[in-house]
Amino acid sequence: MPGNVRIALDAMGGDHGAAVVVPGAALALARHPDMEFIMCGDEAVIQPLLEREPKLRERTRIVHTTVAIRMDDKPSQALRYGRWKSSMWLAIDAVKKGEADAAISAGNTGALMAMSRFHLKMLEGVERPAIAALWPTIKGESIVLDLGASIGADAVHLCNLAAMGSAMARILFDIERPTVGLLNIGVEEVKGLEEVREAGSMLRDRRSSEFEYIGFVEGDDIGKGTSDVIVTEGFAGNIALKAAEGTARQIAQYLRNAMGRTWQARIGYLLARGAFRAMRDKMDPRKSNGGVFLGLNGVVIKSHGNTDTEGFASAVDMGYDMVRYNLLEKINHSLARDLDAMGKAQAAGAAS
Amino acid sequence: MPGNVRIALDAMGGDHGAAVVVPGAALALARHPDMEFIMCGDEAVIQPLLEREPKLRERTRIVHTTVAIRMDDKPSQALRYGRWKSSMWLAIDAVKKGEADAAISAGNTGALMAMSRFHLKMLEGVERPAIAALWPTIKGESIVLDLGASIGADAVHLCNLAAMGSAMARILFDIERPTVGLLNIGVEEVKGLEEVREAGSMLRDRRSSEFEYIGFVEGDDIGKGTSDVIVTEGFAGNIALKAAEGTARQIAQYLRNAMGRTWQARIGYLLARGAFRAMRDKMDPRKSNGGVFLGLNGVVIKSHGNTDTEGFASAVDMGYDMVRYNLLEKINHSLARDLDAMGKAQAAGAAS
Repeated sequence: MPGNVRIALDAMGGDHGAAVVVPGAALALARHPDMEFIMCGDEAVIQPLLEREPKLRERTRIVHTTVAIRMDDKPSQALRYGRWKSSMWLAIDAVKKGEADAAISAGNTGALMAMSRFHLKMLEGVERPAIAALWPTIKGESIVLDLGASIGADAVHLCNLAAMGSAMARILFDIERPTVGLLNIGVEEVKGLEEVREAGSMLRDRRSSEFEYIGFVEGDDIGKGTSDVIVTEGFAGNIALKAAEGTARQIAQYLRNAMGRTWQARIGYLLARGAFRAMRDKMDPRKSNGGVFLGLNGVVIKSHGNTDTEGFASAVDMGYDMVRYNLLEKINHSLARDLDAMGKAQAAGAAS
Repeated sequence: MPGNVRIALDAMGGDHGAAVVVPGAALALARHPDMEFIMCGDEAVIQPLLEREPKLRERTRIVHTTVAIRMDDKPSQALRYGRWKSSMWLAIDAVKKGEADAAISAGNTGALMAMSRFHLKMLEGVERPAIAALWPTIKGESIVLDLGASIGADAVHLCNLAAMGSAMARILFDIERPTVGLLNIGVEEVKGLEEVREAGSMLRDRRSSEFEYIGFVEGDDIGKGTSDVIVTEGFAGNIALKAAEGTARQIAQYLRNAMGRTWQARIGYLLARGAFRAMRDKMDPRKSNGGVFLGLNGVVIKSHGNTDTEGFASAVDMGYDMVRYNLLEKINHSLARDLDAMGKAQAAGAAS
């Protein structure tokens, strides 16, 4: 891709709408000048914000609409009133028409998923989409998927997730053959779901050239960075992510309480505040904001709804990377090999 | 129960065996003098350790065996060589025979579960056991179950878990009618597993007098202390617990790194070390050591395998509480009401 990366933004999405989307885009543009934007939403709201960002304004086209998806509507409701005309739909539509390379929204996750699926359709060979995100680890970062796009997963879907996640890891971590672990539980008696065991033996037998399957990993392996990619079905993945986020917030709260309790602690905190800041930065969920919807005929990124300018800029950065380094092509490549190997395995299974 | 609480210990279980079990029991006895012990294991190992704890020695009977279950054996293997004669089996056997009120082991979880189930049998109306543990929260503690005793759960099992968990909360937190939440995921489109939705409507319709059902909770609600009891099937529960533990360890690591980086940080750390210690205490997994096996005809507690004296004493404390405050009777009471209500609901469902 020699030209600019073209990003379509749902300018009305999220808790703060354009007030975060516009300056967030400006921040991301400062980091990647080879971008241009389509901002979908209410021109009367977007235009004044754009006036403050002259560089961004030059590279932005507004697609006007006054319809915006509400944060708590069901996907079916959102589709009913928001199809064809909401800011979220128009951002996805820009990708569909080939006018943009990626769509980004901080809006309603369920609605974004439903509209993306409805309008962009799934990649060939993929039946269900997935949400993938970066998870900070002791070693750096890992990619965890699915974080709740769908519930339950048969062995084939888990293998698809491995292929899609490893394509994403290849882009983001610049590793030729990322390691992939299957999330499982360690109690010997029950040793995991049957689908997970089956996916494990499929991945092991296949010896993919795209990624290295390292076996089962447990919940505490994610933070250790045991593998570049962690594959799980969406229910457990979503609960793991939120339990970890909850724990991080809980510890931050303990720390705040502890550091305010005595004068020694308060002075100690002041002296060590540089160190605390570095730690907070490392744990800052804004830095890894942006869930990538995988398995679609197009790049769609979901930003957290309550993020700020810095967080939204991270989501735009992720969209940029996904496009600049050909996410879709790489996923398709991985999937094609995967489907091929899977077809052979199934044929062998049917023959036996 | 007017007499002493009688605890049977697998003295050889865990990474450190009797070296932790014996002083751990002594520590717990100092806190609850109305206990007596049966220690199952190698007399030659146990006796010298007991000599150092005269008060404990007076209240301990040794049941000698040289067979011990290895930490990494499969449950089926463990049952084959360890039935009738291993230290783990003999501790469970003491409960079976009515010689002890609870069995505690830091040994192999799968083997302990298999032997407990095989020997003690399930409570009437319960088909599958569960592992429940205390989870530290911002508000105090909550009980989370199942943490991996079995995988998957239909609506009836989830309702059983609610009844068992709330009986445990009534004992440990001394709350007449604990609140219960069902762990679910928040993406609107897929809004949880069908079983979870079904269990939710069963629990809502029932209006149990034993507990208050508050609806769905998400992964980050656990650490907030949103409900006294969090119910989930074992796969997601185990992954959530380990993801949270992993995150806590990861942050502790960040903190150590950050506090050693500059001389200001090091001095700050020294000044604030009382506060750090208080925080570590609060996050200390040893304080909430002890998974309770629920649904059995007997009280069995699993201590972490790698815990120390303090941690093992916490597991003994938990066994003490479970017995002293009639866990089994309370669970049976909750379950009886539950099964009764469930029977009515099913009859109504069949009739409609």
